[in-house]
Amino acid sequence: MKIAVIGAGAMGSLFASYLSKNNEVFLIDHRLEKIDKINKYGIEVVENDNSSHFYKVASYMYNENLPVADMIFLFVKSIKNLEVLENISHIISDKTILVSLQNGYGNDKDLEKFQDKKNLVIGSTTHGSTLLSYGKIFHAGSGLTFLGENDFNKKSLDLVKSILFACGFDLEISQNIEKLMIEKLFINIGINAITALADKENSCIYKNSYAKKISKLLVFEACQVFNLYGYGFNKEEIFDRVIETSRKTGKNTSSMRADLLKKKESEIDKINKVIIDKAREKNVSCPYNEAITLLIKAKEGEI
Amino acid sequence: MKIAVIGAGAMGSLFASYLSKNNEVFLIDHRLEKIDKINKYGIEVVENDNSSHFYKVASYMYNENLPVADMIFLFVKSIKNLEVLENISHIISDKTILVSLQNGYGNDKDLEKFQDKKNLVIGSTTHGSTLLSYGKIFHAGSGLTFLGENDFNKKSLDLVKSILFACGFDLEISQNIEKLMIEKLFINIGINAITALADKENSCIYKNSYAKKISKLLVFEACQVFNLYGYGFNKEEIFDRVIETSRKTGKNTSSMRADLLKKKESEIDKINKVIIDKAREKNVSCPYNEAITLLIKAKEGEI
Repeated sequence: MKIAVIGAGAMGSLFASYLSKNNEVFLIDHRLEKIDKINKYGIEVVENDNSSHFYKVASYMYNENLPVADMIFLFVKSIKNLEVLENISHIISDKTILVSLQNGYGNDKDLEKFQDKKNLVIGSTTHGSTLLSYGKIFHAGSGLTFLGENDFNKKSLDLVKSILFACGFDLEISQNIEKLMIEKLFINIGINAITALADKENSCIYKNSYAKKISKLLVFEACQVFNLYGYGFNKEEIFDRVIETSRKTGKNTSSMRADLLKKKESEIDKINKVIIDKAREKNVSCPYNEAITLLIKAKEGEI
Repeated sequence: MKIAVIGAGAMGSLFASYLSKNNEVFLIDHRLEKIDKINKYGIEVVENDNSSHFYKVASYMYNENLPVADMIFLFVKSIKNLEVLENISHIISDKTILVSLQNGYGNDKDLEKFQDKKNLVIGSTTHGSTLLSYGKIFHAGSGLTFLGENDFNKKSLDLVKSILFACGFDLEISQNIEKLMIEKLFINIGINAITALADKENSCIYKNSYAKKISKLLVFEACQVFNLYGYGFNKEEIFDRVIETSRKTGKNTSSMRADLLKKKESEIDKINKVIIDKAREKNVSCPYNEAITLLIKAKEGEI
């Protein structure tokens, strides 16, 4: 199997390493220094029992001449999907299966612009992975990887499932991956932008009464907007999960806080901004998510 | 005249210096190092033509044994008013005139807890003053100082007016100081918390489209809430003034941004939080000002 993994960050490096056990993997990134290092030394995966394993993975720049891939895993920031898919269109044929296990809501819509629904697999993974340096990651914990089944993609899904299973991934097939993605979205809505603006660890969401209150307002509003589409989310239950996640990940720097600290563009467009778009479609307002989206975008801007 | 000036920050030091020309001034602060330095070297005022003048001003800690004052100017952060007035209650008699030219809305309500309305003068000053080091300030620009006249305080106002005028302050008496204070509040609402969360100079309000949009939402909402009390503010006109101020003070760090950078408590309770209180009284919501108030308070907190 020719498998391309796009993005040599923490999660891309983990999947590329594991997938390289049984497949011909092409790891693609935009940073020459990273690519050179991976080609020279391979990828080192430090497991959470402190054992260390090296994987030989061939790494390439976006513009290199590569064969069409049988399967492509996207592990770039989801806000970059369209740009990245454009750049790798030469390795996508009408048979190539595109897989997104990325953070952020609405990745299916991005992928549908480049491939037929029958060759798309959308999912979510709970693996913990941290980039220690280029080509070296800490695999903090294994967890389930969810893959979404729909009316069109059964054949592709079977292939992705068998490939991942053979490489040691624990899988669960979900008939309702969208609900799962929305629930993940709610967690991100309740944590990420607040920790980024307050510049605090995730624990602030349950420890700091003001952070907790604005988190609740954002999550309740998000649930209300989605419920206009008939989902029936229980907002109290959803907010309990936000609090539980902020406890479990208390010492973590959220990805959005990390992005803003590094002066990088955040994933706000795939998180709180989703609520603005969904609310607009239904002609309702969502002032809390609107305010925090604008503040994150104001902070991101150079001026 | 025995005049106490409370708070040896930029504005307190300026007023204490100028008032010391004709009066016995007691400058009161809580920082021993600052007091010692002022008692030893006086206050140096660097004017904007780069001339430098020294003023001999006696400086004291809050708890020192001082005579009752004829007049007290408050130049502490307005969120500290109640605490500070409690601490200087030994120098307030029923004849002492209390003057607030502080930033923030609602200072009159604080002062009314400690003195009869007839001895209160509330106003606003447009002097520019920056603390360069303890006891040394840069007087960036002179401007009008507004003093509010009401049905009760004519006698006190005359005295404050003559004292300030004799020391070189340009004055304007306003029959409608509250409207003026609210207009100043709107300017602060449109600039301070945004620049603090985005961590940017004041110019971002007119240059960064996202900062501008959230500023407009905050200011419009604030106008709408105040208009429920019958004021009739024109929100477009008010927002134009916010933009004008952000242009004029483009390179400035707003006081709220400065406070958060120094990990100090901000004046949010006298700025955006005012709208929450006013809205609650009228049983309406003000989500934009609520969101930004909670975010500032989350950022202020130690957790």
